[in-house]
Amino acid sequence: MSAAPLFRRIAFIGIGLIGSSLARVVRRDGLAESTVTCARSESTRNAALRLGLVDEATDDPVAAVKGADLVMLCTPVGAYRALVEAIVPHLEPGAIVSDIGSVKQKVVDELAPLLPARVSFVPGHPVAGTEHSGPEAGFAELFVGRWCILTPPPGTSPEAVDRVRALWLKCGMAVDIMDAGHHDRVLAITSHLPHLIAYTIVGTASDLEDDLRQEVIKYSASGFRDFTRIAASDPVMWRDIFLGNREAVLETLQRFTEDLTALQRAIRWGDGDKLIEHFTRTRAIRRSIIDAKQA
Amino acid sequence: MSAAPLFRRIAFIGIGLIGSSLARVVRRDGLAESTVTCARSESTRNAALRLGLVDEATDDPVAAVKGADLVMLCTPVGAYRALVEAIVPHLEPGAIVSDIGSVKQKVVDELAPLLPARVSFVPGHPVAGTEHSGPEAGFAELFVGRWCILTPPPGTSPEAVDRVRALWLKCGMAVDIMDAGHHDRVLAITSHLPHLIAYTIVGTASDLEDDLRQEVIKYSASGFRDFTRIAASDPVMWRDIFLGNREAVLETLQRFTEDLTALQRAIRWGDGDKLIEHFTRTRAIRRSIIDAKQA
Repeated sequence: MSAAPLFRRIAFIGIGLIGSSLARVVRRDGLAESTVTCARSESTRNAALRLGLVDEATDDPVAAVKGADLVMLCTPVGAYRALVEAIVPHLEPGAIVSDIGSVKQKVVDELAPLLPARVSFVPGHPVAGTEHSGPEAGFAELFVGRWCILTPPPGTSPEAVDRVRALWLKCGMAVDIMDAGHHDRVLAITSHLPHLIAYTIVGTASDLEDDLRQEVIKYSASGFRDFTRIAASDPVMWRDIFLGNREAVLETLQRFTEDLTALQRAIRWGDGDKLIEHFTRTRAIRRSIIDAKQA
Repeated sequence: MSAAPLFRRIAFIGIGLIGSSLARVVRRDGLAESTVTCARSESTRNAALRLGLVDEATDDPVAAVKGADLVMLCTPVGAYRALVEAIVPHLEPGAIVSDIGSVKQKVVDELAPLLPARVSFVPGHPVAGTEHSGPEAGFAELFVGRWCILTPPPGTSPEAVDRVRALWLKCGMAVDIMDAGHHDRVLAITSHLPHLIAYTIVGTASDLEDDLRQEVIKYSASGFRDFTRIAASDPVMWRDIFLGNREAVLETLQRFTEDLTALQRAIRWGDGDKLIEHFTRTRAIRRSIIDAKQA
């Protein structure tokens, strides 16, 4: 490879499913001269080194960002603020701070005021994932064919945005730029509400009497198991997402509840035509997703 | 093959996803000396013949059941009653009437009084499926490793139950016998509620303003697309299921709504501990399903 790496040194702060998948692409394509991760737990650090995901591992975020021209926050979003407060004095001039969190407005509101003018802030969200967690769960192909959304605050250096964009393009993603608040409204319906609903219904099932619960597991192939997959995602990450995008989630949930009440009424009153009309409409949406190659 | 076929002649009344998958197994394993399907639409009959799923196809249910020792109802459950009223005088002595519907108590209540003593009634539900419909969508492996539930009314001939069980065992299913009402309670939570929720949330998304709806499709990989898959199932079939299992669906929905309200409150009031507790519990259910090999 004659081309220079995209980055001199990338610091992955946290290295779970997304961070470790990105680290695998960076290693595979030689996108950084060196890499380091900061992780609180020793077993995570050991796994990251054993799997060869990074060159170095530390539990000290200050040590991790030393010499890094890209600091990628890959922890649950609730941990960002304390981390950034700790690393700010030690960020290299010209460094880029980016992230992979599923909530963006809160991240911009919290972090932008903390970051000095000598660094660039390019918040991001690679819209990809599985229900698995941790550095072992990652894989380089996770991002292929999916979208990454960047939400740089007004005034962010275009060069910094371009470098982060180039990184996600190398992962096989298409990259969109949008306003952080708009991102949160879109993700509230595509991701946050579906997860909330799945967490709810699986909880409802787990509260059933013992014998019925055993049967629910046995016959889960009839629809339920798809919800349990979604409801197996990382609890801390999802707590932070729901609390971090509270307003949009609650508003979307309100719409959902109204629609559910309408279907409930149709069932109670035996209004078959209304059910058919609704189910035919939702089938068309599935068709659109297949056409958009996101199925 | 020296063993005699399980059945002399099987009549498939309706031949969609499930019926055509069963017909494929019957053909593959030589489980009947001859087969016939009754389907209203000419294109379905032509497809069934073109695909070699059955020996004969007719639009006349009376002609279809002539000479059949197994009449398998494979239409949406709402069509059963009129069909059975039409075929009853023409059923062979000793014939078995069975079905594949996702609702059982209503089917037993409606059909058992119509059926004469000279035939056996063995209602069934192979708990398997995909979001696709029609004879082209079926495949013989659909049932492998899944459960089939039979709900014979008290007094049903054990020999008839054994013959229907043998058929589903040949499909690779495990077979359970249970009370029809219990079946409906279990399926309300494992299948009917998940489908209702999926239909609702996809409807909520389809009501969004145009630009937002386009983005929902674009970023559907973040959770939403799993719901759209479920919400693409056959509208008529699902109308009949919700209306046919109304009581259990509404009761389960009530529990779900209470649980959703509790999570909504936790988000509104920022109760992160409650969210973590809930999400950790649902993760354990996923583990049970993986352990039960139904993931």
